[in-house]
Amino acid sequence: MNITIKMSGHVLFPSLGAPPDLGAYASAVRDVRELGNRPFVVVGGGEPARFYIKTARRYGADESTCDQVGITVANLNAAIFAEALGEDACPFVPRDFDELGRALATGKIVVMGGLQPGQSTNAVACVLAERSRSELLINTTTVDGIYSSDPKADPSARRFESISAADVARVLEHLGSRAGEYDLLDPVALKLIQRSKITTRIIDGREPTNIVRAARGEAVGTAIIP
Amino acid sequence: MNITIKMSGHVLFPSLGAPPDLGAYASAVRDVRELGNRPFVVVGGGEPARFYIKTARRYGADESTCDQVGITVANLNAAIFAEALGEDACPFVPRDFDELGRALATGKIVVMGGLQPGQSTNAVACVLAERSRSELLINTTTVDGIYSSDPKADPSARRFESISAADVARVLEHLGSRAGEYDLLDPVALKLIQRSKITTRIIDGREPTNIVRAARGEAVGTAIIP
Amino acid sequence: MNITIKMSGHVLFPSLGAPPDLGAYASAVRDVRELGNRPFVVVGGGEPARFYIKTARRYGADESTCDQVGITVANLNAAIFAEALGEDACPFVPRDFDELGRALATGKIVVMGGLQPGQSTNAVACVLAERSRSELLINTTTVDGIYSSDPKADPSARRFESISAADVARVLEHLGSRAGEYDLLDPVALKLIQRSKITTRIIDGREPTNIVRAARGEAVGTAIIP
Amino acid sequence: MNITIKMSGHVLFPSLGAPPDLGAYASAVRDVRELGNRPFVVVGGGEPARFYIKTARRYGADESTCDQVGITVANLNAAIFAEALGEDACPFVPRDFDELGRALATGKIVVMGGLQPGQSTNAVACVLAERSRSELLINTTTVDGIYSSDPKADPSARRFESISAADVARVLEHLGSRAGEYDLLDPVALKLIQRSKITTRIIDGREPTNIVRAARGEAVGTAIIP
Amino acid sequence: MNITIKMSGHVLFPSLGAPPDLGAYASAVRDVRELGNRPFVVVGGGEPARFYIKTARRYGADESTCDQVGITVANLNAAIFAEALGEDACPFVPRDFDELGRALATGKIVVMGGLQPGQSTNAVACVLAERSRSELLINTTTVDGIYSSDPKADPSARRFESISAADVARVLEHLGSRAGEYDLLDPVALKLIQRSKITTRIIDGREPTNIVRAARGEAVGTAIIP
Amino acid sequence: MNITIKMSGHVLFPSLGAPPDLGAYASAVRDVRELGNRPFVVVGGGEPARFYIKTARRYGADESTCDQVGITVANLNAAIFAEALGEDACPFVPRDFDELGRALATGKIVVMGGLQPGQSTNAVACVLAERSRSELLINTTTVDGIYSSDPKADPSARRFESISAADVARVLEHLGSRAGEYDLLDPVALKLIQRSKITTRIIDGREPTNIVRAARGEAVGTAIIP
Repeated sequence: MNITIKMSGHVLFPSLGAPPDLGAYASAVRDVRELGNRPFVVVGGGEPARFYIKTARRYGADESTCDQVGITVANLNAAIFAEALGEDACPFVPRDFDELGRALATGKIVVMGGLQPGQSTNAVACVLAERSRSELLINTTTVDGIYSSDPKADPSARRFESISAADVARVLEHLGSRAGEYDLLDPVALKLIQRSKITTRIIDGREPTNIVRAARGEAVGTAIIP
Repeated sequence: MNITIKMSGHVLFPSLGAPPDLGAYASAVRDVRELGNRPFVVVGGGEPARFYIKTARRYGADESTCDQVGITVANLNAAIFAEALGEDACPFVPRDFDELGRALATGKIVVMGGLQPGQSTNAVACVLAERSRSELLINTTTVDGIYSSDPKADPSARRFESISAADVARVLEHLGSRAGEYDLLDPVALKLIQRSKITTRIIDGREPTNIVRAARGEAVGTAIIP
Repeated sequence: MNITIKMSGHVLFPSLGAPPDLGAYASAVRDVRELGNRPFVVVGGGEPARFYIKTARRYGADESTCDQVGITVANLNAAIFAEALGEDACPFVPRDFDELGRALATGKIVVMGGLQPGQSTNAVACVLAERSRSELLINTTTVDGIYSSDPKADPSARRFESISAADVARVLEHLGSRAGEYDLLDPVALKLIQRSKITTRIIDGREPTNIVRAARGEAVGTAIIP
Repeated sequence: MNITIKMSGHVLFPSLGAPPDLGAYASAVRDVRELGNRPFVVVGGGEPARFYIKTARRYGADESTCDQVGITVANLNAAIFAEALGEDACPFVPRDFDELGRALATGKIVVMGGLQPGQSTNAVACVLAERSRSELLINTTTVDGIYSSDPKADPSARRFESISAADVARVLEHLGSRAGEYDLLDPVALKLIQRSKITTRIIDGREPTNIVRAARGEAVGTAIIP
Repeated sequence: MNITIKMSGHVLFPSLGAPPDLGAYASAVRDVRELGNRPFVVVGGGEPARFYIKTARRYGADESTCDQVGITVANLNAAIFAEALGEDACPFVPRDFDELGRALATGKIVVMGGLQPGQSTNAVACVLAERSRSELLINTTTVDGIYSSDPKADPSARRFESISAADVARVLEHLGSRAGEYDLLDPVALKLIQRSKITTRIIDGREPTNIVRAARGEAVGTAIIP
Repeated sequence: MNITIKMSGHVLFPSLGAPPDLGAYASAVRDVRELGNRPFVVVGGGEPARFYIKTARRYGADESTCDQVGITVANLNAAIFAEALGEDACPFVPRDFDELGRALATGKIVVMGGLQPGQSTNAVACVLAERSRSELLINTTTVDGIYSSDPKADPSARRFESISAADVARVLEHLGSRAGEYDLLDPVALKLIQRSKITTRIIDGREPTNIVRAARGEAVGTAIIP
């Protein structure tokens, strides 16, 4: 089975205080492959992106330019993660759809970052999932799934085991401005999941083994049924 | 004032039966400039895109590849429209954010098409509006504004003169699957308008002079207040 | 045997009224491969190119720009035809000679469109035939071979079974301005065939099985002996 | 008046024995400009191209690859000639039609070499003449015009002061295999001249001042009337 | 006078704890221009580069790949510094020598980062100085000039007001492995300074006004006389 | 074992009087592979580069532009040498570090020329050696090793069988301006060898079999121990 894994930048690069520990994540991706799957990876910008975007914004950069800064960082993070995968990774990070075709032709694990301003790395993960004909999209985040309400504020919030894509839209809207904090799925990513009917699992990426469990089909996190 | 004009592909290239009449639209863009503004243009895919996407889908292309086909057509439409603008247009269609920087540096009217799969040309128009620091985004469509309900089905539907971006989201959701037919604004475009606070006017592009009227600040179509 | 197949744009994309039927042509190319050959494909611009070129010319585009428009369409047609070939096709359309080297390195069926203004897709087919060391160039057209005179005007016109490249030049000149209608071989393509001594077969591409027959060495259409 | 000047590689780079004298040619191009014209330049491959092509062919390179080698050398020659023009030249040699658009946007003297295999630098000069809307194409060669027959073999050969494009085709054919030695105009270049109706003057480039005389409208060499 | 300014990454981006203060440096560059000079800027990788290189090395990246990571970060730093310069900066960071030609053609302040592995940003500054025909290269560091011995270890160390390039080589060698800590000039940069005879001033960049003083010809830091 | 071979341009392209004999060198590289190694090749500019650089300098080109001219020639030489290797060579010459990744992914013999101004092809060979994780770098020159003093001037000069990298620096400095004539190793190449601890053998490349002997571990030329 082809599986696209979105590695949250905040999971892989959570801090600038010390070089991140990518080894466990590289192992998880290799484990996914050893289960007989073909994995594809998208890496977000995380803390380094936040550092640079803050600086750019301070000097008057427009929002699209800030996005572009974040994309450059995500591409760099992707290149670094490809190093952690070593020989198993495609030796270049595709930066547009044409290059993606060439990357897929190598037969190696393709690792991407961002594409263009106005498009989140979550949306890029959906594009890669579509192009690679992935049947499963594993979305690592810093929460352990989608909740009925904000679990920090509402003790009665419960995690969905599975939820339809249409319902996710409603829940995200309900969470309002908080959605950003969850960094779950933006509307465009959701629309892409729906159009291509890709089963998506939102998992807590802070525990790398969750990735392997999701690939095995275990009921970890929340499954979005398209 | 910097003004970004989204030329709907369905307005510029409405049919494959005969070469389209682009002259009136090129004149409108020049008129916008002669009013003392700096115009920027994004062109959609229209009927030629539909023709090619239908063909690609017939042979099993995934959705992202179909998007890419549409982007290629939109870029070609943009190049053709730049011909109609002649010496006033930047002599190349920027295909990524880096090239956009070079295009802006020419001081000419930049004409763009699409960027990457998973991103509509409406979203590209927002990116161009942000990067060019446009204060107004004129969005030509094949309807004359945003309605409270579907005017074809509901005789009591009324057109908004102005509406907040938040309310647009609600109206679009309410119109449900019909939204696609209107080809107004997808969620990601709406989000971009909101983050950069760009006043957006939805006009009926089938009448080219509406573009000039919108640039003049006339109350044509519907204004979205960010 | 390496075989380059020029797919006439007018054969593959004969009309804009409905999405074209590419399936039979994709099957023919696969059949050529199953006979033990390595096929390479060049696709022309056809009706969509005519539509766009007419539009560009209407707004004053110079002839080289019109060529470039036709090349863009031919490249798009090539990408669509590659979709019809699916996994058997190289996942990108090479747009210059360097990219052609990378495409050949994939071992897949390379599908090309045009290269640069002032050069027909027939000439591109010769370049691809040379670079891929093809021994046979199959040129699909909308006539069933080369005739001694215009068969529409002259009932005594007879089709050559084979003809030398030098004689083709004479016949084409004789047919004068009519040559364009036949869309057979322009002088530069003819010169390339001669310099690299590539046997070329002009066939009626409206019947896809003619491609397989030509690859089998059957006496279909007209053979040009270099 | 926009004027495209084809600098024969054999005129600019006639030998590998010593660095060539480009100064007089750079002066001639500047003089053309000071007459109130906008010059554009295409440079051929000359002796260095011959050296490399011979080497490539010796190791089994196919003809298209040999063309590509010649193009690379012509582009290098163009870059060197741009150095001789100094600040007046566009600071990069456009290598495809898109880059040509960017080069023209600089307002400087654009210097080009070759584009793609199967296309002579004479044809490139026609493409540049079309795209730059040149009214005159000055073609420097190592003969002083077009003759009724081979002047070396036939003492009665006479030089045409002017000749129609159609007649050139006939004369070139008549000269047969000898045409190559003259390096005048290949069939595709001739066809491009005809389609865009660009007056072309064939001059002896070994005398640099002939370029200025041709730009002045003097009856030097042979004029081809489209 | 054309002046190339090497902005040490450690001066501009000294820490990851907070977004850096680039404003004073952008002002200094603008001041240099207002004195009637044309400034060119190269930005190093600084702390963000160190963070990423450490991470890459941890996962076994070879030294050239580590260099490439540092180059990517330096290019990003350059893009951010260009934002701080706003409209005065060339809107793209040239990534190779061809793009540098296009950047120079804009007439704006060109801001570069790195080029290729095995080449420091100090060497890139020399390349930019040569290509832009700069007469002065201002090299900001975190020390206030070149000393006869290590000032931290040897109280009798004295700062040179000026020194010949040949003597710098000797001093750097004498300082031995310590040279790295000073981040002054690597051997290749020194060789480039010598071959093009560019006067170079090593200044303490932690005080931005030193840049303007150096441009004014004041005796700040140490001058290297080629 | 991965082995990088630096082919001196002066060895491969020693003269412009006649096409060079590359066949014996291609055989040597193939022999290195048949011994069970994976060879990588870097080709210098040689006499053709000298011809063009002299011309460029004559017309006022700055030193970095002269370097760029030399790089273009080295890349062309590399493409020609790849022709001599035929199907065994990667079908394109990587021109930057990203393309190098793609070239390595082909599994074929990668042949490179130069990268960027300010960087010798010796330094490029070190970059390729690092990136390809070569354990041995064979550096062909026109002398048979490193001598204690200039063997032409000093009859008592003796060739080192092996020498430490640190000692090479001292010897090169001692030979002073003569170093250039030896074309052995510039300081930056030496530094790269040291940082990546790549054993390097300086051999007389005028005898092609020396390359195979060096690959076999024979004591030919001088070994530099990092």
